[in-house]
Amino acid sequence: MNLEEQLLTHLRQIVPVNEALAYKARIREDALAKPRGALGRLEDCAVRLSAIQNRLKPGHENRLIVVCAADHGVVAEGVSPYPKDVTRQQIANFAEGGGTITVLGRHAGAKVILADVGVNYDFPPHPAILDLKIAHGTRNMAQGPAMTREEAVRSVLAGLEIVLQEPRVDLVAAGEMGIGNTTPSSAICSLFLGLPPLEATGVGSGLAPEKVAHKAAVVQRALEINRPDVNDPLDVLAKIGGLEIGAMAGVFLGGALRRAGVIIDGFIAGAAALLAEKMAPAVREYLFAGHCSKEKAHRAVLSHLGLAPLLDLEMWLGEGSGAAAAMYILECAAAHFNEMRTLEEAMVNDTLDRTADK
Amino acid sequence: MNLEEQLLTHLRQIVPVNEALAYKARIREDALAKPRGALGRLEDCAVRLSAIQNRLKPGHENRLIVVCAADHGVVAEGVSPYPKDVTRQQIANFAEGGGTITVLGRHAGAKVILADVGVNYDFPPHPAILDLKIAHGTRNMAQGPAMTREEAVRSVLAGLEIVLQEPRVDLVAAGEMGIGNTTPSSAICSLFLGLPPLEATGVGSGLAPEKVAHKAAVVQRALEINRPDVNDPLDVLAKIGGLEIGAMAGVFLGGALRRAGVIIDGFIAGAAALLAEKMAPAVREYLFAGHCSKEKAHRAVLSHLGLAPLLDLEMWLGEGSGAAAAMYILECAAAHFNEMRTLEEAMVNDTLDRTADK
Repeated sequence: MNLEEQLLTHLRQIVPVNEALAYKARIREDALAKPRGALGRLEDCAVRLSAIQNRLKPGHENRLIVVCAADHGVVAEGVSPYPKDVTRQQIANFAEGGGTITVLGRHAGAKVILADVGVNYDFPPHPAILDLKIAHGTRNMAQGPAMTREEAVRSVLAGLEIVLQEPRVDLVAAGEMGIGNTTPSSAICSLFLGLPPLEATGVGSGLAPEKVAHKAAVVQRALEINRPDVNDPLDVLAKIGGLEIGAMAGVFLGGALRRAGVIIDGFIAGAAALLAEKMAPAVREYLFAGHCSKEKAHRAVLSHLGLAPLLDLEMWLGEGSGAAAAMYILECAAAHFNEMRTLEEAMVNDTLDRTADK
Repeated sequence: MNLEEQLLTHLRQIVPVNEALAYKARIREDALAKPRGALGRLEDCAVRLSAIQNRLKPGHENRLIVVCAADHGVVAEGVSPYPKDVTRQQIANFAEGGGTITVLGRHAGAKVILADVGVNYDFPPHPAILDLKIAHGTRNMAQGPAMTREEAVRSVLAGLEIVLQEPRVDLVAAGEMGIGNTTPSSAICSLFLGLPPLEATGVGSGLAPEKVAHKAAVVQRALEINRPDVNDPLDVLAKIGGLEIGAMAGVFLGGALRRAGVIIDGFIAGAAALLAEKMAPAVREYLFAGHCSKEKAHRAVLSHLGLAPLLDLEMWLGEGSGAAAAMYILECAAAHFNEMRTLEEAMVNDTLDRTADK
């Protein structure tokens, strides 16, 4: 079996969430000792988690954040304010525990895995860095395909297999580090959402606003030169994607395979979610939008996926930071659902009531 | 010294937050190993917490939620879908650990104190219920003052002293349980915000929409009969308030006295915050809006206080549930600020870099 067949075999095993169980979960939710609907979206999340995990007591304790790292040839076009080398520096910083995602991941109670799928640097062996390097970064998509189809498949499988190897997963998120990676993300969004490149292109990690038109022109050139097939997500990933974007899509697919709640982070994760959903449409029902990033087209991506963000805190860092922060919201959802008494239980157990009115 | 003088003595000790420290905190925030501003409102919260707590390493570990409970004479006017007795039942349920706020408070890592300041029922002694009862509920504010000025003062002192007695407080929130308490809250908001009663009155815990006009008419009658003095918050509290609303205002004042971050929950907490801010305007700088409730006038209250909500999840339960959920957002704020490396530290400690480019 070649690699692509291996991936397709995985994809065929992704099942729809259990809508019959969602119905039962809603009955329990409505019976809890509070006015119906009073916990708003926490209630909907609890019901959804039940359907995803296929159990009436959804778990939230086993949390995984996979930070996928890779470099991008398109940085040569001047689309980022940072040099490529910052990818390597930040992964080293994360590995030593000083980065945003390592701090927020720790506070989210999540296991954080740093996966190097394509950084343009050979790290010395380090216990915190998982070496799954497929290439030393992509090629410049403004001049030709970012990678081969086989590399694209391998990137997706890399992310997917990380999730499959975890003993337990209730909630999973993907983060990223890859200087230049909003540019392929904009190309993917432009293609899948049918947006003109300028509407799909933002400032990323802090590009000067006057350079956004240039960045959008690079996106447009990548689309024109490569002509990716919108109905073939692996063709899209190979021609205008990134190695860490493929790996993130794989993490999302792996989350659905494991029947875990899947939390999208920001814009780049959104592009990866679009790819994952094209590969296996049932994935959509496993997705939660951790937050709404300030990056220009992120809200359009969420709207396309039918998702409302759990948090809206004007964050635009990436790395998985918004998804990490949102894990606690899903904890609130699962916890109230699992641990609250129903109204009936509360009445029966009203031991403090010494009156005779029962 | 009489009770009101005692309260005024406390109020005079509330100091403005340390804006000079906020300036220093912003410098540290901007030096962290991420693009400036990329963590959005988490960054602003970290800077604000530093100024509030008067230290460059703001704490978030010591968390207190005070759930204040009391009954309301105005329930006789048919303003709530629930009978008064539910206040007692729910406090008993909270005490046994089965209520929303007990579950979410536990998951927020907070100490939850249930304070009975005016429930119309004498609970048998219970380790989880703090007996600070001032009266067996308020009188019907649609027929005259809800309470005496002395009762109002005592309710504020009750909340304030709970916070003063805690050994350590970094973050504090107030929750409530009191059937009928959105009606006095609407009266308070109508008065302080200059809103017509109908614009300040919503469905509370689930009043049939066609009964909201009646509820607003009750609010209007309470305002007309009592003519509370908008410049005298204790007069407002006594005439159109509630015992738990006074206690919540006291919790907020106590939080400011202890230099803790103060988290407002929903609409009733918002009304209490308006009272606290009238008593001591410096309190405003200590406030965070935990979330935006679906209750009609809550957004107007937050806007009046100059606050943007941390969460917006369509919750409207009260009890402190939204504030409990928001405590984790402030944890993310303080944690990234305290534990991330600066860019300089990240470069110096880049032990994974074997190249000679430093």
